[in-house]
Amino acid sequence: MPDHGNLLRPLAVPAPEEVFETLLDLPGARIERIVSHGHASPEGFWYDQPQAEWVMVVQGEAVLAFDDGRQHKMRAGDWITIPAHCRHRVESTGPATVWLAVHCAPTP
Amino acid sequence: MPDHGNLLRPLAVPAPEEVFETLLDLPGARIERIVSHGHASPEGFWYDQPQAEWVMVVQGEAVLAFDDGRQHKMRAGDWITIPAHCRHRVESTGPATVWLAVHCAPTP
Repeated sequence: MPDHGNLLRPLAVPAPEEVFETLLDLPGARIERIVSHGHASPEGFWYDQPQAEWVMVVQGEAVLAFDDGRQHKMRAGDWITIPAHCRHRVESTGPATVWLAVHCAPTP
Repeated sequence: MPDHGNLLRPLAVPAPEEVFETLLDLPGARIERIVSHGHASPEGFWYDQPQAEWVMVVQGEAVLAFDDGRQHKMRAGDWITIPAHCRHRVESTGPATVWLAVHCAPTP
């Protein structure tokens, strides 16, 4: 795993799947870069994670949806903490959208 | 602690000290926003931290220095993992520089 890089370049070209890259993986936290090009979670799919996730849109735009019906629009610089077991999905993303996600260790 | 926000605005106005704001504080990781306006670490001061730190310049520019003489120039999107007890200092920052720092739990 490299110890440095740039989050914005090079950017994966548009492809059928989002591109996930782990930047740091320690017992307490895993830091991940995600590149989306108009991707969305599959219809009816919900993330339901045992650990809290902190996520920021670094470039581009996206909409997160929660299973209580809330939608959360995100543009560059917007961040949100998603508690453990808070069901959510990616409703939509713009082109060339770069996320930074920090997955925290499961709460004991 | 708010559960969402924007990393780039509002931006603290230039002041004698950098502005530190904790965005998430869990056992495994603490996520921090730092706003610098031309600040540098005091002459002769070194950070020597018991935990690894992952840091990115989200906006602006900065130079980190390490005690083996290396300097690491950073611009928007550049990130680096600083291992535990790797002595470093902020050599310089540009105006309106925004950092994102993830402080991982001390290695057991």
